[in-house]
Amino acid sequence: MQYLQEQFQQYLQNYTFKKAPENLYAACSHILAIGGKRVRPVALLLSNNLFGDTTEDAMHAALAIELFHNFTLIHDDIMDAAPLRRGEQTVHHKWNMPTAILAGDVMNIYAYAALNKINATYVQACLEVFNRTAIEVCEGQQMDMDFELRTDVSIAEYIEMITLKTSVLLACSIQLGAILGGATQGTSSLLYEFGKNLGISFQIKDDYLDAFGNAQKTGKQVGGDILSNKKTFLLLKCLEKADVKQRARLHQLLASDDDSKVSNVLQMYTELSIREEAMQLKEHYSQLAFTALDNVAVPDSRKQEMRTLAEFLLNRDH
Amino acid sequence: MQYLQEQFQQYLQNYTFKKAPENLYAACSHILAIGGKRVRPVALLLSNNLFGDTTEDAMHAALAIELFHNFTLIHDDIMDAAPLRRGEQTVHHKWNMPTAILAGDVMNIYAYAALNKINATYVQACLEVFNRTAIEVCEGQQMDMDFELRTDVSIAEYIEMITLKTSVLLACSIQLGAILGGATQGTSSLLYEFGKNLGISFQIKDDYLDAFGNAQKTGKQVGGDILSNKKTFLLLKCLEKADVKQRARLHQLLASDDDSKVSNVLQMYTELSIREEAMQLKEHYSQLAFTALDNVAVPDSRKQEMRTLAEFLLNRDH
Repeated sequence: MQYLQEQFQQYLQNYTFKKAPENLYAACSHILAIGGKRVRPVALLLSNNLFGDTTEDAMHAALAIELFHNFTLIHDDIMDAAPLRRGEQTVHHKWNMPTAILAGDVMNIYAYAALNKINATYVQACLEVFNRTAIEVCEGQQMDMDFELRTDVSIAEYIEMITLKTSVLLACSIQLGAILGGATQGTSSLLYEFGKNLGISFQIKDDYLDAFGNAQKTGKQVGGDILSNKKTFLLLKCLEKADVKQRARLHQLLASDDDSKVSNVLQMYTELSIREEAMQLKEHYSQLAFTALDNVAVPDSRKQEMRTLAEFLLNRDH
Repeated sequence: MQYLQEQFQQYLQNYTFKKAPENLYAACSHILAIGGKRVRPVALLLSNNLFGDTTEDAMHAALAIELFHNFTLIHDDIMDAAPLRRGEQTVHHKWNMPTAILAGDVMNIYAYAALNKINATYVQACLEVFNRTAIEVCEGQQMDMDFELRTDVSIAEYIEMITLKTSVLLACSIQLGAILGGATQGTSSLLYEFGKNLGISFQIKDDYLDAFGNAQKTGKQVGGDILSNKKTFLLLKCLEKADVKQRARLHQLLASDDDSKVSNVLQMYTELSIREEAMQLKEHYSQLAFTALDNVAVPDSRKQEMRTLAEFLLNRDH
């Protein structure tokens, strides 16, 4: 896994944008240089390796996925008015909003340019998966924004939103790797299911860590989601399980900006066993993911690296 | 030409987005419904007709071009902080900036989804032309924004900017129509040149009409570009031809927001024959366009409709 991460990182470093217009392409390079774990391209390459050696097509697809992901980061940061990403200035802060919009737009197009280098045998199948996914990612982001203004978000809707906003891109990456490895449609669909459920489980863990994580390990303030009244699984489950009196207290807490807001909400989470609910739901989706992977018809020994990636994503404490 | 315009309009009316998320897709439908002359898809279909009957692939490509064009309109309107387009509210005004960013993003992806319906024989060739063009459109928009902050823009740079920002998409449309009609690479490239020069000529006419047009016919305030100090061909040529004294006067006029700003600048344009310069340059690019079209190896009678479109674009007084 680490080998593929380094291989992809190297590939990315050799990828350069044009020189001009300078502002536009400096913005694109900036977001790519901020880094990240490159989980999606690595998952794509691992999936490709289930069926043989890494193909050149898989590298094109991995690049496309990373470019697309970074395009969404630039635009999401504008929408969230976020000044920082991984300790670095966001694109709209370092340049300006118009350049950030354009840098995102052009990176999306460069993702398609990378996909168009894929061998003719596979290009349309890959584009079909990619287009459907890219549309879903936009839909998920819109749902997330819509949720901020709603008070009646159900847990089912929340799961749908995180599926679209974050899981399907991991699923798509893993499916593309399989398609480009020559997998059958059934096998590539199973791997999509694996990635989708892994992504959902990962996102629930993310919600969990925001409330119950160790600030020293996560590097984030504990309870950031609580402070911003974010409709996470934890909050929605707490609202669902609360009796009339508890719900009134929770709404009162949400409306406050008291210093003890985080600790008070966490106390309610404890009262209603929300921590255990989150662990259970995470486990549910992990099981779905691993069952799908088990059913993939390749020798079990080949799946070990993919299991390592999944466990790395699910067991992280930061 | 009118027949194809109606045919495409009909096709577009039958094209519907998904129902949910409602805000996202209502925004997409809104911009498409605002309309416009559908010049690019019509040019694509006309180009396709140079080689035979309209193919289904050409309809897919025409839709893709119109979706892409509308995506850029949504994002350009955000960047320009424009409240209105064709008398209707812009997307970021009717909804909000985040939804406008996302609606643009998703329309770009739908453009690719339409392109991916093209027959396997042609899809990669079409995507190659489309991707290169889409990148150039973003670059042109960035150049346009960069020009606002510069005082040393040359006429050559201005021509490059309008080429990228507006002409190449018309050129791409016409080339795609040719590719999908089975044209040779040489022929499709000639048609690209035709479209590119036609687009440049069209944009110079646009600059011209803003200063010298009839407000009743254009429906726009005469001198809008002058009021906003926009670096059009007219202004750049005026700065180039002006002697030291005239240049100082022009800079003084640009710095003012006097009621007589427009008439005073127009007077300088007259003194320095800028109107004639613009007409000459427009004519230069028209000639390049028509020469390219003349060299396309199809019977002259088939080209008549394309000439009609070109003349419509170049001779319009609004």
